[in-house]
Amino acid sequence: MARKTKKVTVVGSGLVGAACAYSMINQSICDEIMMVDRTYDRAVAQALDLSHCMDFTSSRTKVYAGRLEDCRDVDVVILTAGANPKPGQTRLDLLEEADKITRGIVRQIMDSGFDGVFVVAANPVDAVTYIVREESGLPRERVIGTGTSLDSARLKTLLSDVFSIDPRSVNGYALGEHGESQFVGWSHVTIGGKPLLQILDQHKERFQHVDLQEIEQKTKDAGWEIFTRKGNTQFGIGNAIAYIVRSILNDDHKIIAISAILEGEYQQSNVCTGVPAIIGEGGIQEVIELNLSLEERQKFEHSCGILRNALETLADKQA
Amino acid sequence: MARKTKKVTVVGSGLVGAACAYSMINQSICDEIMMVDRTYDRAVAQALDLSHCMDFTSSRTKVYAGRLEDCRDVDVVILTAGANPKPGQTRLDLLEEADKITRGIVRQIMDSGFDGVFVVAANPVDAVTYIVREESGLPRERVIGTGTSLDSARLKTLLSDVFSIDPRSVNGYALGEHGESQFVGWSHVTIGGKPLLQILDQHKERFQHVDLQEIEQKTKDAGWEIFTRKGNTQFGIGNAIAYIVRSILNDDHKIIAISAILEGEYQQSNVCTGVPAIIGEGGIQEVIELNLSLEERQKFEHSCGILRNALETLADKQA
Amino acid sequence: MARKTKKVTVVGSGLVGAACAYSMINQSICDEIMMVDRTYDRAVAQALDLSHCMDFTSSRTKVYAGRLEDCRDVDVVILTAGANPKPGQTRLDLLEEADKITRGIVRQIMDSGFDGVFVVAANPVDAVTYIVREESGLPRERVIGTGTSLDSARLKTLLSDVFSIDPRSVNGYALGEHGESQFVGWSHVTIGGKPLLQILDQHKERFQHVDLQEIEQKTKDAGWEIFTRKGNTQFGIGNAIAYIVRSILNDDHKIIAISAILEGEYQQSNVCTGVPAIIGEGGIQEVIELNLSLEERQKFEHSCGILRNALETLADKQA
Amino acid sequence: MARKTKKVTVVGSGLVGAACAYSMINQSICDEIMMVDRTYDRAVAQALDLSHCMDFTSSRTKVYAGRLEDCRDVDVVILTAGANPKPGQTRLDLLEEADKITRGIVRQIMDSGFDGVFVVAANPVDAVTYIVREESGLPRERVIGTGTSLDSARLKTLLSDVFSIDPRSVNGYALGEHGESQFVGWSHVTIGGKPLLQILDQHKERFQHVDLQEIEQKTKDAGWEIFTRKGNTQFGIGNAIAYIVRSILNDDHKIIAISAILEGEYQQSNVCTGVPAIIGEGGIQEVIELNLSLEERQKFEHSCGILRNALETLADKQA
Repeated sequence: MARKTKKVTVVGSGLVGAACAYSMINQSICDEIMMVDRTYDRAVAQALDLSHCMDFTSSRTKVYAGRLEDCRDVDVVILTAGANPKPGQTRLDLLEEADKITRGIVRQIMDSGFDGVFVVAANPVDAVTYIVREESGLPRERVIGTGTSLDSARLKTLLSDVFSIDPRSVNGYALGEHGESQFVGWSHVTIGGKPLLQILDQHKERFQHVDLQEIEQKTKDAGWEIFTRKGNTQFGIGNAIAYIVRSILNDDHKIIAISAILEGEYQQSNVCTGVPAIIGEGGIQEVIELNLSLEERQKFEHSCGILRNALETLADKQA
Repeated sequence: MARKTKKVTVVGSGLVGAACAYSMINQSICDEIMMVDRTYDRAVAQALDLSHCMDFTSSRTKVYAGRLEDCRDVDVVILTAGANPKPGQTRLDLLEEADKITRGIVRQIMDSGFDGVFVVAANPVDAVTYIVREESGLPRERVIGTGTSLDSARLKTLLSDVFSIDPRSVNGYALGEHGESQFVGWSHVTIGGKPLLQILDQHKERFQHVDLQEIEQKTKDAGWEIFTRKGNTQFGIGNAIAYIVRSILNDDHKIIAISAILEGEYQQSNVCTGVPAIIGEGGIQEVIELNLSLEERQKFEHSCGILRNALETLADKQA
Repeated sequence: MARKTKKVTVVGSGLVGAACAYSMINQSICDEIMMVDRTYDRAVAQALDLSHCMDFTSSRTKVYAGRLEDCRDVDVVILTAGANPKPGQTRLDLLEEADKITRGIVRQIMDSGFDGVFVVAANPVDAVTYIVREESGLPRERVIGTGTSLDSARLKTLLSDVFSIDPRSVNGYALGEHGESQFVGWSHVTIGGKPLLQILDQHKERFQHVDLQEIEQKTKDAGWEIFTRKGNTQFGIGNAIAYIVRSILNDDHKIIAISAILEGEYQQSNVCTGVPAIIGEGGIQEVIELNLSLEERQKFEHSCGILRNALETLADKQA
Repeated sequence: MARKTKKVTVVGSGLVGAACAYSMINQSICDEIMMVDRTYDRAVAQALDLSHCMDFTSSRTKVYAGRLEDCRDVDVVILTAGANPKPGQTRLDLLEEADKITRGIVRQIMDSGFDGVFVVAANPVDAVTYIVREESGLPRERVIGTGTSLDSARLKTLLSDVFSIDPRSVNGYALGEHGESQFVGWSHVTIGGKPLLQILDQHKERFQHVDLQEIEQKTKDAGWEIFTRKGNTQFGIGNAIAYIVRSILNDDHKIIAISAILEGEYQQSNVCTGVPAIIGEGGIQEVIELNLSLEERQKFEHSCGILRNALETLADKQA
């Protein structure tokens, strides 16, 4: 009898890592969760706190603290550990630090014999996902960044409010960088399968108060709105990670906007950015290429340029 | 302290009624379920069988047998009881019998002081929904037929297989009659928000084996395929009902293809047929009008004609 | 990357098999379900009907029809197929038929290379479980009968009504044969951890209407009460099976009253009967030996005698 | 049609309040959550962060920021806001501050027309629960402290590890103060309904490593173990609160160890402390009186004395 325990490792036991573990426990997404942290005691504390949930949920998820070298038979490693911005540090400095930390972690995980899927949530997520893939040497389908999954959920939540519709009956994506250059693919936003642009066009008066630019800006700013008020964001991203992990562990083949290394899709390569993709057991099954409008294509290219530049500048600096 | 017990009555404790109750218990959709049946003992048996599930689920749903006159404080009445085809009986004879049975049931329920939402699953569902509304005198938003909800799920399941995608990442509707004249609204079928017709057009070779007419036929025939092999269908329809009820009780505002009485939408009125609608606390919040293609509009009109004819012929006969 | 798809086969696609599959889908208990039936078309029909649920549930359970020879990589085989009582047939005749059918099925499954756990629900369940173990040659921990799991749930549901307590805060077991000679282990029934006998003793007046003999009789008769009214029981047993399967697939280590082959526990061996046991990944982790009262021990022995006799008489007849 | 929206207010949007809201969203426990905080912006930030989860869960829980004066039609108010220990402050100083803060909050909530149930998680929880009841003037069944619910879950988790059993098959309570003077009611700890003390007595060799005193100490210290490593505890308590709220909103009648104002039970009154109680729609349906051993009775009395003293000293100081 082969054991089929579905195991997840959370690297980084801070606010995001813990929220995502909490969500996976409450939704019974996996069988075991191993919490890892640079400060081992913090992993122990989170695992202990999380383990007390077991009596209150419908399934038994075992939670314990572990180390990077214990990832051999783990199915999914969630990466939430990264660099923290310091005063006076440039974006490039930050990326350089993230690069160093990430490569160190990934090397240890790969050395353990890990043969699963990485889900990367550490920021800047697109660049870090790229680095994880490079350092791990895994095929691109096995390295998934959370990308614009959360931004897309925020978009849907905003549209859900405006149109008074369940967000799960809305489809739409924030695309490109999980950051300033992201944009909404309005050409493919649908409500109950009906294109949003068509709805607005047909009901000009009824929806005259709907301002797409404002919604796009709010989507982009939502994280910042939270951050300025409480100094962090953790719950939305925690659930976004859990959602991606469930689609992997259940082989759901859900289409989710995640950060993928492009290999020709959208005429881009050597860059990692937010696009819809089919997520299943082996990770990314396929990147979905939307037929973006001309304007959206330009925004996408622009966003990719920024992401590619950052990685190139880093390479130059390190050279 | 006002009590906020969410109560559902299932009228008709046969295969469909019991499957739908079972599904609501397993998914913890409501607080109480009252089983009703013409044969009171059957309601008692189903309630007893279902009550033993309680120990194995995460929430406590109370299940008991009751009578039509006990519906005063019930939130949703599910109607699964209807006429059974007899040999030699014409469709009109059947409708006439369904009409008689349905009006009798509805009258008793309304007399009890019922002030909630009807979810009608008894066949022929579009006509019976129309009759329930007429007899109850309730506003049209409070009378929902299961319509093409199940046909749409079958369509999504078929597409999910063909394209290897989670059905919840597919959007699409079977429209019109829950019966022979139904059709698929291909113009609004999307996969991950991307129009299916576009996908097929762009990937002719890859998807050359995909035959939309065949899928449409299979969607329509799925019930028959099951029926000829086991003499009934109960699980898909049970879950479809549960899904509609959850959207009502949680005020989810999900968009679901249900049977609604049209009041000008799609340029139709005095007919009840399968269209997407927003489902929330008060029932139908709004019927979604898709911008159907010319061919689809003709099919819709044709389907409505058939449904309207049936009701008119019945009226003539009864006159 | 090793695949960790949790697979269940349901042998017998009748009322019980289908209800149990439906429950596993609604509760997202496994990744794949294979329906098997002597009449292949019935398995196809049930799988098709069940597959349409996918769009309405939170996880994607793949359901399909298959054959006994496809069980190689299956984790749990649920056995619901068995003999049906015919007029004029004695109990021994029935057991003889069940024996023949069961051995045929088990042989085919073992020949497929099956290396998982059997969950047996076919009646007479205690004898059939014994036969499955014998024919399969598997260690006893891998062959679990549903035993008194459902009877225990019925007991808890009854107590839950009498004392107005959530059945999950009640603990108690029906023990022995899933049949006439079963009994309630009153010495170990607790409500919120407090022994029931103590509660009744302390609150004689308040609970003077509580009649344990009546509750025990009702527990035993519940199936019959349902059967006489609708000709079958399926929902409670469906959920009981799903509960056992979940405890296996999640390695939950829940304590459930199931039918186990005894190897010295309760001073019994060569018999299979209802006892509490710890259920986890490999099946039965351990049989829990309660310190029964003298009267209960006598009832247990009596029940085991009946079960052992039946098997011996069968062996004699076959010899 | 009466609306039956199940509404919960979380007062205090810090770590515990947010974790508990997160858990209620992930488990679909209520329809609406209103986050309240002294710093309104923090409530806004938590509500916004939590609202982005909606797209990733199976039900739609509306989350928004609000104020104490908006509690009129709320079913359950969760109180997590309280005093924070400051250096040099005595326990009495702290209690005095908690008293002041709590009474202010409760007054505003009652003035809003609130007519539901309080679930108190603010520390020192037993004293604060007592104060909430006094200030609100509500009957004692409507004021529930989280008491030893989490301590009991910790106990079960520890026993679950030691005996390799699902914690939901273990029953047992930490009793008395949620603090230093708490103790385990070993006489009523059962595993699968079998008394733990009996198990240990019968299997001396096998379980010789089991040290009840050590388990009791670990139960008491678990919070501290977490606190010293990460400066807070939030997940276990978040789930404990969610569990209590679900039992209220679903009228589950689960037996949970909570903090109740005693009115003669355990020969105590004018004190609020951790005891098992039946929790349903109206709050506490009944306090369960266990037949504690002599030693346990003494510990209970001792613990009540400490709690009563604290409240009396506070009253003296304020007089």
